[in-house]
Amino acid sequence: MTQSPARFSVLLRRRPRGAPRPDDFTMQEDAVPAPGAGEVLTRTIFLSIDPYMRGRLSDRPSYAPSVQPGEVMTGETVGEVLASNDPRFAPGDIAVGARGWQSHIVSPAERLAKVERPGPPLSAYLGVLGMPGTTAYSGMTDIGRPKKGETVVVSAASGAVGSVAGQLAKRAGARVVGVAGGAEKCLYVQDELGFDDCVDHRTIDLKAELAAACPNGIDVYFENVGGRVQDAAFSLLNPFARVVMCGMVSQYNAEEFPPGPNLGFVVGKRVLIQGMIVSDKPERFAEWRALARPWVAEGSLRYREDIVTGLVHAPEALAGILGGTNFGKLLVRVGPDPA
Amino acid sequence: MTQSPARFSVLLRRRPRGAPRPDDFTMQEDAVPAPGAGEVLTRTIFLSIDPYMRGRLSDRPSYAPSVQPGEVMTGETVGEVLASNDPRFAPGDIAVGARGWQSHIVSPAERLAKVERPGPPLSAYLGVLGMPGTTAYSGMTDIGRPKKGETVVVSAASGAVGSVAGQLAKRAGARVVGVAGGAEKCLYVQDELGFDDCVDHRTIDLKAELAAACPNGIDVYFENVGGRVQDAAFSLLNPFARVVMCGMVSQYNAEEFPPGPNLGFVVGKRVLIQGMIVSDKPERFAEWRALARPWVAEGSLRYREDIVTGLVHAPEALAGILGGTNFGKLLVRVGPDPA
Repeated sequence: MTQSPARFSVLLRRRPRGAPRPDDFTMQEDAVPAPGAGEVLTRTIFLSIDPYMRGRLSDRPSYAPSVQPGEVMTGETVGEVLASNDPRFAPGDIAVGARGWQSHIVSPAERLAKVERPGPPLSAYLGVLGMPGTTAYSGMTDIGRPKKGETVVVSAASGAVGSVAGQLAKRAGARVVGVAGGAEKCLYVQDELGFDDCVDHRTIDLKAELAAACPNGIDVYFENVGGRVQDAAFSLLNPFARVVMCGMVSQYNAEEFPPGPNLGFVVGKRVLIQGMIVSDKPERFAEWRALARPWVAEGSLRYREDIVTGLVHAPEALAGILGGTNFGKLLVRVGPDPA
Repeated sequence: MTQSPARFSVLLRRRPRGAPRPDDFTMQEDAVPAPGAGEVLTRTIFLSIDPYMRGRLSDRPSYAPSVQPGEVMTGETVGEVLASNDPRFAPGDIAVGARGWQSHIVSPAERLAKVERPGPPLSAYLGVLGMPGTTAYSGMTDIGRPKKGETVVVSAASGAVGSVAGQLAKRAGARVVGVAGGAEKCLYVQDELGFDDCVDHRTIDLKAELAAACPNGIDVYFENVGGRVQDAAFSLLNPFARVVMCGMVSQYNAEEFPPGPNLGFVVGKRVLIQGMIVSDKPERFAEWRALARPWVAEGSLRYREDIVTGLVHAPEALAGILGGTNFGKLLVRVGPDPA
């Protein structure tokens, strides 16, 4: 018997209580499998780490099935095709869409999209051009609909979704105010991303600081965090404001949810509050890639990445993003770029 | 000097704290005025009493200006034209649109709509065919959009808005569950209005009773009351549910608002929560009157009225509607029907 090349996988060992810890996961080594009919084998180059993953670790009912203890953890990857049983992919192609915290992944070909080369760095296809970018695009296009001269507030403004959401609102001609954690992130949001202002959510009187940054109130609030940032933003909403409910990461580790805002204001101000999950409109992914690729190429759509090296560090990376310690789109480099 | 006929007006004397009391108002007598250029003088037949009026007594910022102490209290009326300086109206016409807790009202002609006679009882133009009916129609048409087979829950189901909202959802083919206060109202909602079920909000375990009445969850929630009814309904919302935020009468007398629901579920369930004020779409009024008048005439759109006699009782009537003691559309008869 010849020795097969090794595949490494990160499995959920047990459901975390509160913040996930590295020992809630376990690493497994086995042989790299061969793809079946209509399947493709990819070698993972980057794995995306995103806040929504906390929901997959929980057994609360959700819009997507939970990962069960003993199963491979889920997540988007970009990788190189090593073997293909589908005419659309050949070895050496780059593909996005394979899912799993794994060094090698077998996927049905129809789940994958080919990445044109040459082009932006491969990591961009998991961030600014990938699921987070598409989320921002879909949320702003379908719900937020910012207009020239309106005020748009984006929470988690330096993050993968928020950074794109705010830049889209700037392109629409809005005044854009970010909320981010710490002075360094706030500087980046203003100086690099070009937001008009940014408020540090760690400030004592968040409501007053946000009010000062939004002298004309808030017309669109792009919600990524919940908690006290939500309280502050909701208190400043204008008549006919739109709230894009994209995420509430501040409570993803919570065992019990705190109460929320009294909704009386929603009636009199005719506010629209709407939840969204990017996968509901799969056509938005290709639409956004086509729209944003030239902007990324010319440098007019800015992004920042926070790259951790080694699949073994994926659990710590997930814990970090839930605590806000990352700075920019969080990725794990699992393998090298193609030669 | 001849004695002019008397006009009676109810003025706000001071802003109520908590529930309004009769001595927060005062009655004033003066002479019936003559209409100016382009104006019409009406004799009030019915005055509408509606929960939104509590907002006009408060100095909290709102979508409409407050009534100031010393001013005539505002409210919709139907009346008989006594004198007109506009070619569209002649003495003896019946008009809706004059506003004020007054026996006689001078209005700009363009604010009034002529009521075709003969036709439904005049009181209907303040309820099922008036502002409350139009509110239900607008909320269901623009936000709720119930589909065949969906489950629709309507709070304050026996009230002027809720009764129409639920009947519209029945016409759309939905399963309709009301929430009302007490066994008598619940019986009426089921037996007279034809809802599929009705839950008494005074029950101890409201969530469990509402869940039992909604075995397939809730797709549309028409919100008139807030508080624990909102908590119960929100806990049962299905993915892609729509919440018509029409009112939250349970807190209209509150000096401080209690916290509301944690909104985490809005993201994963892609819930839409939207506030509405009927006057934002003035074209809906005539549209609804034209649509619903035949239904009222044939008896397929049911309604119930709770009529108090005498303008002097309007303040008590308002206190009653805020406490839910009325049963059906609340009106004050101010003067007799035309001979």
